[in-house]
Amino acid sequence: MPLTKKELIYEGKAKKVFSTTDPGLLITEFKNSLTAFNAKKRGSFEGKGHINLRITTLLFDLLAKNKIQTHFVENLGDELMVVRKLQMIPLEVVVRNRAAGSFSTRFGLSEGKLFDEPFTEFYYKDDALNDPLLTEEHILTLKIATRSEIEKLKQTSLEINRLLKNFFREIDINLVDFKLEFGKNAAGEIILGDEISPDSCRLWDVNTGEKLDKDRFRRDLGRVEESYNMVLDRMLKRGEKR
Amino acid sequence: MPLTKKELIYEGKAKKVFSTTDPGLLITEFKNSLTAFNAKKRGSFEGKGHINLRITTLLFDLLAKNKIQTHFVENLGDELMVVRKLQMIPLEVVVRNRAAGSFSTRFGLSEGKLFDEPFTEFYYKDDALNDPLLTEEHILTLKIATRSEIEKLKQTSLEINRLLKNFFREIDINLVDFKLEFGKNAAGEIILGDEISPDSCRLWDVNTGEKLDKDRFRRDLGRVEESYNMVLDRMLKRGEKR
Repeated sequence: MPLTKKELIYEGKAKKVFSTTDPGLLITEFKNSLTAFNAKKRGSFEGKGHINLRITTLLFDLLAKNKIQTHFVENLGDELMVVRKLQMIPLEVVVRNRAAGSFSTRFGLSEGKLFDEPFTEFYYKDDALNDPLLTEEHILTLKIATRSEIEKLKQTSLEINRLLKNFFREIDINLVDFKLEFGKNAAGEIILGDEISPDSCRLWDVNTGEKLDKDRFRRDLGRVEESYNMVLDRMLKRGEKR
Repeated sequence: MPLTKKELIYEGKAKKVFSTTDPGLLITEFKNSLTAFNAKKRGSFEGKGHINLRITTLLFDLLAKNKIQTHFVENLGDELMVVRKLQMIPLEVVVRNRAAGSFSTRFGLSEGKLFDEPFTEFYYKDDALNDPLLTEEHILTLKIATRSEIEKLKQTSLEINRLLKNFFREIDINLVDFKLEFGKNAAGEIILGDEISPDSCRLWDVNTGEKLDKDRFRRDLGRVEESYNMVLDRMLKRGEKR
């Protein structure tokens, strides 16, 4: 019997999550909507959900081959992905290789500067509070995660960065920064959830510096759909060459 | 020959700093002005500089007796304090015992909640950037301090908190949070600089909960001068009893 959607249990800005006939599994639906600035800016394009599903599938597959556990189970086509149910940790983990976005704004630095070492940041996933930056002391004080969980999140995120950075470099894309979300499985293990797509990464063409990610929407740069498609195309061509 | 002011080398929101006839020493002048919200709000009262000088002198003396090195050398009376010249580190170190101020705002928590453990925060001392919160990764990436310097700043600040908390508790004041600034001496040692006063601390009466600090000015609570005086009076009376 194929797995089917039961109830909508969560609707976020870019995804819907449904319970299924299997209590351990969920179905994620990638929406075509685009939002920025805590949903103050809204847009969409036809096929975005499907592109992000395919990109996420390819990247989660890459991670699985490199022993990074993710919630991914199956790509059902269209905009649907089967995932393992996790107890989500209300953190956004950002990995930064180069100065860009809120980091550049916060510290008055121009975008593009390569850091000596990549590093992680934590944001509290809370729309009402506008997803504030958290220090490790905040995470401990607010009892969001333990010290060893923080360490695990950091190390796993940096390892994912190494894998993704190399992957994107092969298709002439610089991975500038990206955001991850994690959850715990029934055994208490920390597992990568959510998605990895041009919605959650900054991806710059190595040769032209052109942005191939959600900043095209955020900053009204045009050719949003074309850029998302270009990322997927390069990923698929790389796969064919192997 | 008494030490005298030479040139004004720095003017901040609450203090002026002068070079002196001794190249290793500076004279700090405590101003009567009060500012808040990155100087968007301004006020003053006659005698504030003198009160803060006296409070800072008493507290730096307490710290010195407990083997915490500070830049304090001598109280010259009026609003003038002789200090050792330091290479200042552009960080504000905040120690929090209870939720209040920007912590409460950031996380939507009511003021007054006692934390299980006090903790430190770092802010980048940069008015143009509005003194942003920094994680340890930011401090390392921006090369503001090394990992061991960060650790020293944290441990020293928490030790200062233990001493000050006990001191204020004896005069029926809860030390809610406070801000410190540090610098390095010629030998590269990290030394406490700046001041400790009702401008830089949240001080709440243990019995009434009444605020006895700059929040009276920030939040237009009235009796600003009376409250600063009350803190000094209680400190002096405690000294007499000993």
